[in-house]
Amino acid sequence: MTDLDIASQCKLEPITKIADKLGLNAEEIEMYGKYKAKLPLNKINEEKLNKSKLILVTAISPTPAGEGKTTISIGLSEGLNKLGKQTTVVLREPSLGPVFGIKGGATGGGYSQVLPMEDINLHFTGDFSAIEKAHNLLAAIIDNNLQSKTNSLGIDPRTVVWKRVMDLNDRALRNVVIGLGGTTSGVPRETGFDITAASEIMAILCLSKDLENLKERLGNIFVGYTFDKKPIYARDLKAEGAMTALLKDAIKPNLVQTIEGNPAIIHGGPFANIAQGTNTVIATKMGMSLSDYTVTEAGFGFDLGGEKFFNIKCQSSGLKPKAVVLTATIRALKYHGGADLQDLKNSNVEAVKKGLPNLEKHLENIQKFGITPVIAINKFQTDDEEEIKVITDFASKKELPVAVADVWAKGGEGALDLGNEVIKVIEKNHVDFKPLYDWDKSVEEKIATIATKIYGAEHVEYGAKARAALKRIYDLKLDKLPICVAKTQKSLSDDPKLLGRPKDFILKVREIEIAAGAGFIIPITGDIMRMPGLPAHPASENIDVNSEGEIVGLF
Amino acid sequence: MTDLDIASQCKLEPITKIADKLGLNAEEIEMYGKYKAKLPLNKINEEKLNKSKLILVTAISPTPAGEGKTTISIGLSEGLNKLGKQTTVVLREPSLGPVFGIKGGATGGGYSQVLPMEDINLHFTGDFSAIEKAHNLLAAIIDNNLQSKTNSLGIDPRTVVWKRVMDLNDRALRNVVIGLGGTTSGVPRETGFDITAASEIMAILCLSKDLENLKERLGNIFVGYTFDKKPIYARDLKAEGAMTALLKDAIKPNLVQTIEGNPAIIHGGPFANIAQGTNTVIATKMGMSLSDYTVTEAGFGFDLGGEKFFNIKCQSSGLKPKAVVLTATIRALKYHGGADLQDLKNSNVEAVKKGLPNLEKHLENIQKFGITPVIAINKFQTDDEEEIKVITDFASKKELPVAVADVWAKGGEGALDLGNEVIKVIEKNHVDFKPLYDWDKSVEEKIATIATKIYGAEHVEYGAKARAALKRIYDLKLDKLPICVAKTQKSLSDDPKLLGRPKDFILKVREIEIAAGAGFIIPITGDIMRMPGLPAHPASENIDVNSEGEIVGLF
Repeated sequence: MTDLDIASQCKLEPITKIADKLGLNAEEIEMYGKYKAKLPLNKINEEKLNKSKLILVTAISPTPAGEGKTTISIGLSEGLNKLGKQTTVVLREPSLGPVFGIKGGATGGGYSQVLPMEDINLHFTGDFSAIEKAHNLLAAIIDNNLQSKTNSLGIDPRTVVWKRVMDLNDRALRNVVIGLGGTTSGVPRETGFDITAASEIMAILCLSKDLENLKERLGNIFVGYTFDKKPIYARDLKAEGAMTALLKDAIKPNLVQTIEGNPAIIHGGPFANIAQGTNTVIATKMGMSLSDYTVTEAGFGFDLGGEKFFNIKCQSSGLKPKAVVLTATIRALKYHGGADLQDLKNSNVEAVKKGLPNLEKHLENIQKFGITPVIAINKFQTDDEEEIKVITDFASKKELPVAVADVWAKGGEGALDLGNEVIKVIEKNHVDFKPLYDWDKSVEEKIATIATKIYGAEHVEYGAKARAALKRIYDLKLDKLPICVAKTQKSLSDDPKLLGRPKDFILKVREIEIAAGAGFIIPITGDIMRMPGLPAHPASENIDVNSEGEIVGLF
Repeated sequence: MTDLDIASQCKLEPITKIADKLGLNAEEIEMYGKYKAKLPLNKINEEKLNKSKLILVTAISPTPAGEGKTTISIGLSEGLNKLGKQTTVVLREPSLGPVFGIKGGATGGGYSQVLPMEDINLHFTGDFSAIEKAHNLLAAIIDNNLQSKTNSLGIDPRTVVWKRVMDLNDRALRNVVIGLGGTTSGVPRETGFDITAASEIMAILCLSKDLENLKERLGNIFVGYTFDKKPIYARDLKAEGAMTALLKDAIKPNLVQTIEGNPAIIHGGPFANIAQGTNTVIATKMGMSLSDYTVTEAGFGFDLGGEKFFNIKCQSSGLKPKAVVLTATIRALKYHGGADLQDLKNSNVEAVKKGLPNLEKHLENIQKFGITPVIAINKFQTDDEEEIKVITDFASKKELPVAVADVWAKGGEGALDLGNEVIKVIEKNHVDFKPLYDWDKSVEEKIATIATKIYGAEHVEYGAKARAALKRIYDLKLDKLPICVAKTQKSLSDDPKLLGRPKDFILKVREIEIAAGAGFIIPITGDIMRMPGLPAHPASENIDVNSEGEIVGLF
């Protein structure tokens, strides 16, 4: 059975019933069809949310075998609900573009899914398209200003860093020349399109406290320089008001349900390799305002999504997690231990052992934030007992809690052990969360802290472009912003080929970008893909609508 | 008071109450927030809809003074409801892009508006962005096929006619080169972006009977040729299933309300100069299935939207209008009569008289379809009695019904006379609707019929590109499709400067495009703008969100 088959067999509750579980009546929510709703921002309650227990689900370094962090997050929330803890899972929205490529959905799997999965994976409530529109409106205003004779800011077209976005896998748009066709059709210049999830506005929306803060951040977007080398921000183009108007509904978190009829809040979807990789601050706070336990996730491995969750999201919003679940799979550990992708189904205790250092490093990293991690082994049918024992033995040696979670096949029932371990950590209150670095340190110090303490690098090297960018950052007085490293997710290092626990490597920063609106600095440490392509036979070839009007062939 | 001020003061009814007026309960609709809903396609009832009276609102040739066709449509529906006829107004969705340029909203004006106007003018229920996504998915699939080694159809990149779309005024995207950056980033080629309303998918959605028919039309989209000169359609790329999946909600009509709390259905928004210029067939049929009287409009003057409404929309869907309202304003007639734009506020009886031939030609055109037109004089404060008398005298000489409608200031109350005239025409049952041409005629005959009978041209001339296109159309066996002329809206002729009733002109067809999916042939008779630009000071500079989260500065 595919995920879509399982999802289709599930009888959904009206979203009003789910809202009721959060203490919200039908009048207080805005319905989007029968099974989706937007939640009003005034339900965020700082007093209540401080009493909610926030649990972050993260993972070891991702492998092609898959770790199933979203599935674990959903399953854990079902398990906690079964254990009598009123729990909401808070997740990112999937990107539409990859649905037509090779990627499966991003709504969990098996009996740990959020529903209605076909809606969530397609347009959902329109948040991504609102972000896309706001992003491209700013681009149109920039090019219009280049064209204008009477309203010109004197922007040098060669310095414009603001590209356009589209939520599709469309490699032909990566590098384009626009403004062709003569004097009435713009100023020719080179630019490109990123996928919408990579928009700075996605990062901005996800870090904003409210509409006003959103507008301020949108105004702070750095656009480029004038011919006189004066920096230009979106506010100089008077663009932030209209952009905010386009985002007035997108800022409201979306309520849906898990396959077991528990509440799920899904909102915002930045990537974790180029941005902060976690859902909106508003959604997390909403979940915490309305429930005793809140489970959330951060993208890719702990070195990317986890580190950024703590140092950027928590530090900017005052959130304090009470527990961290580190997701691992036997298959992924075998891959880190040197096994071939096609052999991962076969038992290989040695490979699991050899893969442990990757797990170990992520555990150490979590502990650096003052938190006791809980290891979740996301069970696959092919796992054997010997292999699992390698991890449980390792955990008991380290005196760390561990549980096998069988959430794909069993839903919340499969997460009772994991849920109990998480509750124990929280109730012992052994967590004393502290971020890793102070935003007030120098840019180089902040980058070095992440590189050496989290990635395990020897030191950091800056290329010529990066050094020039550093100077620019200090000139623009943006050096007090936190760091959001753009790095491969496949390795703790900046080399995707170095699996396991790389040592003695040097983190090479090639360039540094400024996300002045989102409020972070992005050191680029490799070729980061911001506009994927479609495969030779794209998934779109199999997607269809049947005679009952139902979508088929999706995943 | 601005339109937004008036709209803001209005207390909206919950959309469930509006649905109730159409005999639909809360379970039968899909809410999008509290004041918008999607209607299920199974409520279309062919038997019921044949009993509903369909009224088309059209206009004389548009001038910069504005005619207010949408305002008249809304006001007339309010008036008919006041006169005891259960009436629904069915309109097009506004395009988002122009909202940030200079254009006002497209949701009526004054006390004849549809609400919530700020939502309808911005993202509404996401239909436009679904169309944009489906359009651009096909473009991504085309470029992916050009790139592919294993799945190549051998498309010649120079022949690809399918562009991309974006719902913004962004002139810099009119002409672009994509696929730059080397072998991994696509095949370089020249293309461009149109505004989303100009997408063939907009035209397709608006002519589709149901999901199945939508999918068939999407599959029929003509994309370009292979190197062997074989035509390629979207179905050859297996794209139509995924495109249909993206449009599964967009195909459902949207229910909102008028300022007086009557139902309004708003769905689809093709332009009338390059496409058929009227809302979806599905929305019109939905309105007719649920109400005794249905008021709808077609874009620009009767020569464009009206002619296409009858020959394309009615002929393809079997709809039969019972009345046509021709909207005119004193100001526009003065402009057609030679008065300067800045003098239109001053009384000028002579100019009104000189402008009458434009009105007269449109009236004659309507009568060619077997329908007695009702003239609606859309009242402005600056009109004087003498000027109005010019039109009423003219109407009585022609024995045609006429009424002054003061719907901007008075809403439905201002349309009682107009409503009564319309009811009289319908109840006398003097209408014997017949289309102007048979789709089976040759392409040249069909074009000549429209040019000579509707526009008043002497004859038609074809340029070299148009002659080549004619051959292509016959080769592709697409010659039995109806004609959708792309022509300036400013004149009955193809020369925007010829106001009034141009005579002795030759219609010059420069090119002919094929909309094989929508199912029509588009003779191009001038420079038709498909991607507008922003003005030097775009309206976006004044749009904002206030501290209460309300949008301000919109129009």
